[in-house]
Amino acid sequence: MRLRNLKNSKDIIKNSSLFISEPKIYKGKWDKLFNNNNPIHIEIGMGKGKFIIENAIKNPKINFIGIERYDTLIAKAIRNIEIDIPNLKFVNIDASNLENIFDKEISIIYLNFSDPWPKDRHVKRRLTNEIFLKIYDNLFINNKKIIMKTDNRKLFEYSILSLSNYGYIINYINLDLHNGECEEITTEYEDKFVDKGNTIYKLECSK
Amino acid sequence: MRLRNLKNSKDIIKNSSLFISEPKIYKGKWDKLFNNNNPIHIEIGMGKGKFIIENAIKNPKINFIGIERYDTLIAKAIRNIEIDIPNLKFVNIDASNLENIFDKEISIIYLNFSDPWPKDRHVKRRLTNEIFLKIYDNLFINNKKIIMKTDNRKLFEYSILSLSNYGYIINYINLDLHNGECEEITTEYEDKFVDKGNTIYKLECSK
Repeated sequence: MRLRNLKNSKDIIKNSSLFISEPKIYKGKWDKLFNNNNPIHIEIGMGKGKFIIENAIKNPKINFIGIERYDTLIAKAIRNIEIDIPNLKFVNIDASNLENIFDKEISIIYLNFSDPWPKDRHVKRRLTNEIFLKIYDNLFINNKKIIMKTDNRKLFEYSILSLSNYGYIINYINLDLHNGECEEITTEYEDKFVDKGNTIYKLECSK
Repeated sequence: MRLRNLKNSKDIIKNSSLFISEPKIYKGKWDKLFNNNNPIHIEIGMGKGKFIIENAIKNPKINFIGIERYDTLIAKAIRNIEIDIPNLKFVNIDASNLENIFDKEISIIYLNFSDPWPKDRHVKRRLTNEIFLKIYDNLFINNKKIIMKTDNRKLFEYSILSLSNYGYIINYINLDLHNGECEEITTEYEDKFVDKGNTIYKLECSK
């Protein structure tokens, strides 16, 4: 992904109540921040946030936290929001540091159109590699549930094997999500890829 | 599948040493029939047999048994064979009766282009339904391994869920088998479907 830089992104982020600049202090107590015990869903790699923003608006009884390592993208997400969304927060960290900010409090992890890291030597960077699955184990409150969408066939195939071998059971799978009626909340990428005619894959798994 | 009848199919079958007319008597002792302890692979729904015949010729150290409920198809398979293939046999039974003829002696089950039974009320007839997975449990000698190919997306999606929920781990998956180089031994259907441009799905799973 090529990122167009947003000159004042740091300012946009700092001035928004949506952005949590010191997420470590909420480790194990995000319920206090949200001021309720509603389930918490996170999206790792939220991009410009279309998916998580729409989800948060549609599901006020669920708390959503968007994880994104590029602050420019978080700034773009914040710029797109014109209403108050109390059940939505954004965090600017890398997925490899998730254990520093969450402790057994997440119900669902969304992985949408993650970087496929196609080269074999980069396999450990894929967000469904065992290294990350081990990290996720410590984030989940109870039942572990991952929901994944991608247009990258090789990443999807890899993820099925990796998740299955790690003990996840596949509860839902769709190998052509937008063939026929689809009432999905989409991501920015998803809309682009569907327009291009790409096949979109989706799975839900739990352990 | 519409079957063109072969008038003399019963005669063709009876006169072939490839055909086992009384498979029940070999239950638990197919090794005696083959006169060796090589692994036994079965294909459930072998059709006209292209896949299993080519496999048997290519792998003489593996014994292959083709299961087919239509004797006309077995007759067509036999008609296509002009050489001696000692590691190949055909059996004319329905998959629901497999426990009557095998007892802990199969290494791999192949399910190639099985009837998708698309209607919900026919779900129990799909060869990856739990009813059949329970039957297969008693056929396997040790590790359970199923290898499946299909061009039917819905059947493939259903099978992934059913196998995963039954405890199978997915070890290999390809969501577009003939996109790029493919040295697979194909079935008759597979060749037709590839010519039509259909996507072919494949998985291998074990438990």
